[in-house]
Amino acid sequence: MATESLDRLSINRITVKSWSMEQVISGCARAGINHVGLWLEDLAEHGTEKTARLLAAHDMSVSSVCRGGFFTGDDPAAALADNKKSVDQTAEIGCDVLYLLAGGVPADRDLPRARRMVADGLAELVPYARDRGVRLAVEPLHPLLLDRSVVVTVGQAVELVQPHDPAVVGLAIDTFNVWWDPHVLRDIARAGERVISYQVCDWLVPLPHPVWGRGIPGDGVIDFPPLTAAVAAAGYAGPIEVEIFNEKVWATEPSEVIEVVRSRFARVF
Amino acid sequence: MATESLDRLSINRITVKSWSMEQVISGCARAGINHVGLWLEDLAEHGTEKTARLLAAHDMSVSSVCRGGFFTGDDPAAALADNKKSVDQTAEIGCDVLYLLAGGVPADRDLPRARRMVADGLAELVPYARDRGVRLAVEPLHPLLLDRSVVVTVGQAVELVQPHDPAVVGLAIDTFNVWWDPHVLRDIARAGERVISYQVCDWLVPLPHPVWGRGIPGDGVIDFPPLTAAVAAAGYAGPIEVEIFNEKVWATEPSEVIEVVRSRFARVF
Repeated sequence: MATESLDRLSINRITVKSWSMEQVISGCARAGINHVGLWLEDLAEHGTEKTARLLAAHDMSVSSVCRGGFFTGDDPAAALADNKKSVDQTAEIGCDVLYLLAGGVPADRDLPRARRMVADGLAELVPYARDRGVRLAVEPLHPLLLDRSVVVTVGQAVELVQPHDPAVVGLAIDTFNVWWDPHVLRDIARAGERVISYQVCDWLVPLPHPVWGRGIPGDGVIDFPPLTAAVAAAGYAGPIEVEIFNEKVWATEPSEVIEVVRSRFARVF
Repeated sequence: MATESLDRLSINRITVKSWSMEQVISGCARAGINHVGLWLEDLAEHGTEKTARLLAAHDMSVSSVCRGGFFTGDDPAAALADNKKSVDQTAEIGCDVLYLLAGGVPADRDLPRARRMVADGLAELVPYARDRGVRLAVEPLHPLLLDRSVVVTVGQAVELVQPHDPAVVGLAIDTFNVWWDPHVLRDIARAGERVISYQVCDWLVPLPHPVWGRGIPGDGVIDFPPLTAAVAAAGYAGPIEVEIFNEKVWATEPSEVIEVVRSRFARVF
């Protein structure tokens, strides 16, 4: 991405984990950043009304809400109820992108059955999301994270969302999750207008931790420009959200983290 | 696999890491095991002549030698020379399966280029291996391990080996590396006679470590029977090699580890 501007930069709140939601919103605004990604836990803690007020006061948009889904558990009815509530909360703060994780490998280890549960659970949620103007962003996770998502490639996610209205069900591309895939560029092209969110973080070598070891873009081995170009060619022109799970990053003063991310943004993508 | 017999069980020497090669061979023989997997480091340490004598003395076969390849580095000529030496050593101990890892993401982060280097490097090695009666087993690694292998799916490996004589170039299927893949059963069927080695270990949840956190079959979440059936349907009837990288397993008395593996073998597969 050849841009001198930070207009598209979004900071996912987990990147500055030690900050309260209020600090995230005011801190990003102070840094000239127009978008943040929030978590359902933020909305539960502060309520959607207060959150919406805070966002409006700082003229801040929410690029995504993390994260519903989890369709592979023992109680699909409870999951559906939780997901409807998450759709409501997303709509109430004026965001139209709710991330969905498929849910992990079930106790009986039957992956094909689990993948059918994801398709069924998604289908049940779609009408509710459509009625509330919230788009569902299915996020394939890295195959390292099969305990959280049995959907692990962009190609698999494209097939999963295929039966549904593209105005309601799309995909979230996160560089950490997809960079390894020999077919990723082809499958992002296949996804086309389904690409409704783009998250970025880097893959560190050696990987410090299976979950909490992601890197600030530029610190790892991911070649971002081809992925960013593929997402752009697919038609996505929205925020680019920096989401970093990393214990060292979390131990750093959040405004310093934001400065590093800002300085990398124009250079790396 | 419905078998009461341990005839097909092979122990990769890394599973009993604290043992010397001699202890591995005699310990497995004592436990009624007919096959071991060895590493090039063993052959370098003891010499191929002594190794061959030890194997013969215990009537032990070698199911595989780990591991050549690494085609993505800065010096392809040096890699080719190393690989030729590895082919020689494999032949000298009477084993006909040499594992190849592709090599990891290169310094310039260019994965498509790295994948072309793997295809080129493999092509250069094939005639040498054919002349010495050694089959090359390309092992796709888990996408978690892209720092070691830019080949990460069975489908990708099938395409990589396609140009070469199936009598010389095949695939190694390791459950840990492939279990997550939505297309794994289809792609093992596509591989057919190319499947020339089958390694097993489990995926633990949570994953204790990105590299040294694999599980003894039965301790994790992998559903082995469909994978074992797919490998059998592809035509593979050779040893099933238990290869476990795990610091806790390594800290356990090796003969105890072998007993656990033996007890799991008929039950899990």
